[in-house]
Amino acid sequence: MAPAPDGFARLFNPRAIAVIGASPDAARIGGQPIPILIESGFRGNVYPVNPKYPRVGELACYPDVAAVPKPCDLALIAVAAPLVPDLIAQCGRAGIPFAIVFSAGFREVGAEGAALEARLKEVIAASGVRVIGPNCIGTMNLVDRVYCGFGVGFRNPHLKLGPVALVSQSGGFAYSVVALADAEGLGFNYIVSAGNETDVTTLELAADFIERNEVEVLVLYVEGVSDGGRLRALGRRALELGKPVLTWKAGNSAIGRAAAESHTASMTAGYELYRAAFREGGFVEVNDVHDLVDISRAFLHRRLPRGPNIALITSSGGSAVLMADECDRQGLVLPRLSAATLEEMRKVAPKNCSLANPIDLTAQISGRNEDFNRVVELTLADPNIDQVIVRYGNVQGAVGEAWARQLAGLVGKTDKPLMLALGRVPDEAVAALKVLEDARVPWVLTPLRTAVAAGALHHYAEKQRRFRSASARGGGRPIARQALEFPSGAGRLSEHEAKRCLAAYGIPIAREVVLAPDEVAALRKAPLEFPLAVKIDSPDIAHKTEAGAVQLGIKDLAALKSAASEVVANARRHQPGARVNGVLLAEMVHGTEVIVGAVNDRFFGPVVMFGLGGVFTELLMDVTYRFAPFDAVTAREMIAEIKAAALLTGFRGSAPLAVDALADALARVSWLAADHAERIAEIDINPLFVNAAGVVAADALIVLKN
Amino acid sequence: MAPAPDGFARLFNPRAIAVIGASPDAARIGGQPIPILIESGFRGNVYPVNPKYPRVGELACYPDVAAVPKPCDLALIAVAAPLVPDLIAQCGRAGIPFAIVFSAGFREVGAEGAALEARLKEVIAASGVRVIGPNCIGTMNLVDRVYCGFGVGFRNPHLKLGPVALVSQSGGFAYSVVALADAEGLGFNYIVSAGNETDVTTLELAADFIERNEVEVLVLYVEGVSDGGRLRALGRRALELGKPVLTWKAGNSAIGRAAAESHTASMTAGYELYRAAFREGGFVEVNDVHDLVDISRAFLHRRLPRGPNIALITSSGGSAVLMADECDRQGLVLPRLSAATLEEMRKVAPKNCSLANPIDLTAQISGRNEDFNRVVELTLADPNIDQVIVRYGNVQGAVGEAWARQLAGLVGKTDKPLMLALGRVPDEAVAALKVLEDARVPWVLTPLRTAVAAGALHHYAEKQRRFRSASARGGGRPIARQALEFPSGAGRLSEHEAKRCLAAYGIPIAREVVLAPDEVAALRKAPLEFPLAVKIDSPDIAHKTEAGAVQLGIKDLAALKSAASEVVANARRHQPGARVNGVLLAEMVHGTEVIVGAVNDRFFGPVVMFGLGGVFTELLMDVTYRFAPFDAVTAREMIAEIKAAALLTGFRGSAPLAVDALADALARVSWLAADHAERIAEIDINPLFVNAAGVVAADALIVLKN
Repeated sequence: MAPAPDGFARLFNPRAIAVIGASPDAARIGGQPIPILIESGFRGNVYPVNPKYPRVGELACYPDVAAVPKPCDLALIAVAAPLVPDLIAQCGRAGIPFAIVFSAGFREVGAEGAALEARLKEVIAASGVRVIGPNCIGTMNLVDRVYCGFGVGFRNPHLKLGPVALVSQSGGFAYSVVALADAEGLGFNYIVSAGNETDVTTLELAADFIERNEVEVLVLYVEGVSDGGRLRALGRRALELGKPVLTWKAGNSAIGRAAAESHTASMTAGYELYRAAFREGGFVEVNDVHDLVDISRAFLHRRLPRGPNIALITSSGGSAVLMADECDRQGLVLPRLSAATLEEMRKVAPKNCSLANPIDLTAQISGRNEDFNRVVELTLADPNIDQVIVRYGNVQGAVGEAWARQLAGLVGKTDKPLMLALGRVPDEAVAALKVLEDARVPWVLTPLRTAVAAGALHHYAEKQRRFRSASARGGGRPIARQALEFPSGAGRLSEHEAKRCLAAYGIPIAREVVLAPDEVAALRKAPLEFPLAVKIDSPDIAHKTEAGAVQLGIKDLAALKSAASEVVANARRHQPGARVNGVLLAEMVHGTEVIVGAVNDRFFGPVVMFGLGGVFTELLMDVTYRFAPFDAVTAREMIAEIKAAALLTGFRGSAPLAVDALADALARVSWLAADHAERIAEIDINPLFVNAAGVVAADALIVLKN
Repeated sequence: MAPAPDGFARLFNPRAIAVIGASPDAARIGGQPIPILIESGFRGNVYPVNPKYPRVGELACYPDVAAVPKPCDLALIAVAAPLVPDLIAQCGRAGIPFAIVFSAGFREVGAEGAALEARLKEVIAASGVRVIGPNCIGTMNLVDRVYCGFGVGFRNPHLKLGPVALVSQSGGFAYSVVALADAEGLGFNYIVSAGNETDVTTLELAADFIERNEVEVLVLYVEGVSDGGRLRALGRRALELGKPVLTWKAGNSAIGRAAAESHTASMTAGYELYRAAFREGGFVEVNDVHDLVDISRAFLHRRLPRGPNIALITSSGGSAVLMADECDRQGLVLPRLSAATLEEMRKVAPKNCSLANPIDLTAQISGRNEDFNRVVELTLADPNIDQVIVRYGNVQGAVGEAWARQLAGLVGKTDKPLMLALGRVPDEAVAALKVLEDARVPWVLTPLRTAVAAGALHHYAEKQRRFRSASARGGGRPIARQALEFPSGAGRLSEHEAKRCLAAYGIPIAREVVLAPDEVAALRKAPLEFPLAVKIDSPDIAHKTEAGAVQLGIKDLAALKSAASEVVANARRHQPGARVNGVLLAEMVHGTEVIVGAVNDRFFGPVVMFGLGGVFTELLMDVTYRFAPFDAVTAREMIAEIKAAALLTGFRGSAPLAVDALADALARVSWLAADHAERIAEIDINPLFVNAAGVVAADALIVLKN
């Protein structure tokens, strides 16, 4: 249900606003919205609603919602929580399409509040009113100057207007962030505290904002979202539009997650799934106010680097060293400039300075602004370079302003991003920074932070290229949807049943048969080639090894028969009531062990996990995730992402393994999980053996859901 | 050569200063020091020296150094590089004890400059003058108001005085950092740009500053130091004094290191050795200006937490969640408060708020400053809590000031650290912040940064405890110095010779013998128990496996004889001239493979490396370093530090291995490396097998130096 681009237009820019629970007492929440609306410059009518008062301030007060004049597009509700549902119903009857509920006392306070919230949700649905909150502190529209909220964050009519929108699951925190970002010079246009999201969610608002032309950067403070699919859709749309969603995700550690739950009672998936969504879509994770400011500024340049190659131009060796270190951490590359560029550069660069990248023009460049900019111009023109950071000292006063104007002119002649690492107090360079800001040339306070912002541009550009390439490739379905027969109800498949599902999707499995115990006892010759694995085949025994129901490396018929009878006896002893399909005989396979898993997350749907076996996965957590389905190209990215990838692609002279076959298998698992997401809760292939010739699943588990 | 505490007194606070190369032209470097000295408030005499001018500004100018009146404690030198050595010699003859050389054109510009610098170094030594620079921008003493330098960084007479000293290997960068930190309210007392450090080094200055009472925090910007031992000594002294050395280390990536070399031509060890020094001593690594400001403020509180337990008290759920996440990353723990504390707290806390830690008093606490502070008081008194962060909104104006005064009073009654996470623009809370600053209660701009600073206090306190415990334990030498006989000159020992060195230090090795090839051929029975390893024993063949000179798992005498002759033949074919001591027969040993190495770093001396074998060390870089020698307690810390430590201490029900024996072996290797640092360049035990009973070295290499 993506809203139309103007779906929330009258919420943020209402013709008139009713304040329900209005009070003359500014210490009460109901006493604050009216002065704030007036102070912020709201030009529509404001209608206080409260049966207790004939007037509130200078305004006539209405006894109830029905008495409010029409048209009224928005109700601000500041009454005791138990009264809220009925008031929403009244708004519905009065034809008020939007409400913002400040009242607290819903699910964030426990079971009683949760029951009240459930009732509120029903009333909202029946009323047709779209509701922000409850338990929120309000919204700001700086374009049309409409502040609808309470608290100190709204007593700031001089906030700077700019092309950044913010939606936050924490109200107090959001307005603290806005105040700090404003002090660093970043301007916002829309700010929303989403509260409990009983009706309108953070993601619905985000989907609205990202379509607005005036929103160039979207910032989300998120503790958890209930719809992973919508989060992913937002990420895709962001990449299509080339807009970044700066995402400040909190509640990621166990203790932070517990705190988040007590805070807004968010139901949340594991952080690793959020990260998978962030990596795939147009998101940029931020962790503090300065990240938000720097990276917003970088994107407001409205250009992205074509590749990882960056040039650093400085007059201070120390900042060159620091930025080079950070560029390395960011995966940026500092190539040499072309010979032609260097030849031209030598004509203007101070002698004895280093023109290797970083280009350190040293303090000798002081006062030679034209020469400095000539070096910048040559660097921007160099085909080896995708983006540029300059760090320069002569930025004060009129001289700095002239320098900045010339620099902005040079930047305007290219489509490559360029940022200034300021490295001084902004007050000393006001004129120059104004020129750069008008020209949308980003500046960042410190060299390190500049390199971080350059990294963010690069990573975003890479994601956009990957996204476009994946879109061009299409779905990459390696096999048509296969009909599979599953038993009804929740439960497990036996190993053999699970492997038949894999085989149906073209995932190689070991050659195997299931025989009844007496069939094994009667065998004259082995049905498969030795050595064999002998296991119980039962949907009820998940941990076969612990049950003593696995024997490996069986080399002859006699050993096979004795292994089979032991396996059956052990299984029956371990779990007397277990259903047993028979004895599974499988040819032994070899190679490097990897694990391929899929879980059907309640928030994100099916997601595939990949890692090397044993300690790599369980101790070192060297695993990676992708949402299903995906194609083999994406699977190759997964394989390349794990730290121990060299063990598959060739390490210390060992032969490379069949990585293409592995990627194909990963993609097929993703389609199996996606095609049958209605029934498959979990897939676990552990181990999948990878060798030089291909891959083979040696064990498999599939868990079904209702 | 640690200087006496007042060794540099007259450098920073001279009675009179000669400015050599003084000029009336402010665009020249020589034209800047005199106006800067006057502007900064220097009260001593200033003597321009330049044969070209009779006066410079209002001051009489002297034709040469010899003509300068006595006493003159400091010369500032701003002349062409080739003239510098002779001028230093003149200073020496004139009895001027200190000089600061601004001139560039030494080793930073290549071979010719390096030769000039070598000559300068000789002249300095002969002259007795102590010299800062060359290629530096100067020093500042804000206590006595003496600015000796040039450039925009010195045109700031209003820098705030505070208890922080800074020594930097990058001049321009240092003064940029100071300006930015000053804007965030941090004050400095001494600032030095160390330049090429031809005479006085960063570490000599650091050793001086850390002893000064007025220096409570020392900041170093370092690209590389030439004396690792002195760096380590500084770290120990810092822990003894309880002062932090905030270390901003740049040039750590390959590209950054290359940039650092072109910048100041620093010779540097690998970053991992710096990190080992930082981890051991009173260093705190910082990466940007805000780290520096926040962590300095945290330490100026002059109290350290007794343990990892922290309480967060907020009125905003969002900031609670963010801080909880960061505390988790920092290794801080959020315990529940005691039952008694909670009982008292419930009397004042708003209903429905969460008193689990983080304590979220919600927006309902607004205006109830006394109740908020009562919660703080109870938390500080709780025995489960070692330090506290508060995040509170009501900090404006007189109300905020009163709140801050009460808070400071509560903090003054305990010895636990408490920090305020401000979360708003400081201008809005000027009065409250002044109260806190006067009381040395730290405040930090954002919640995340506050949690980072709390983590820094905790890590420092832990290091101090470890240091004190190690000092109390003494050296922990597990074995007296053993005399070892080494062949003269650089080269390798054979495996057997290397293992005899290990055995001399009590490190268990496999039972083994070396026999001549014909002795093996004549054997009637094996001299050791099968299975055996058979290898060539030669100081010349480093890579035995590649030479085909190793056979493992030999099970009987016939196989032994054939293996021995193959190994010898292969070795001779692989490297015809190699010296061969014989055939090494060794009993096969088993267990988990680890690697123990030692290198004798030219900057840091002997250092021991530990990691698990194979991919863990070579691909995942899961290794740790300690300087030799150390005791088994420190070795246990090393073992616990690697990510895959659980493979040794017990993983998924596997039996724990003999970690004590491993720790003992590590300590013994460290003593071997330290006792024989004059000859041993490198030790490599790969693998050392660890099993449930103990450890055994299965292969060993020792490389000698001249």
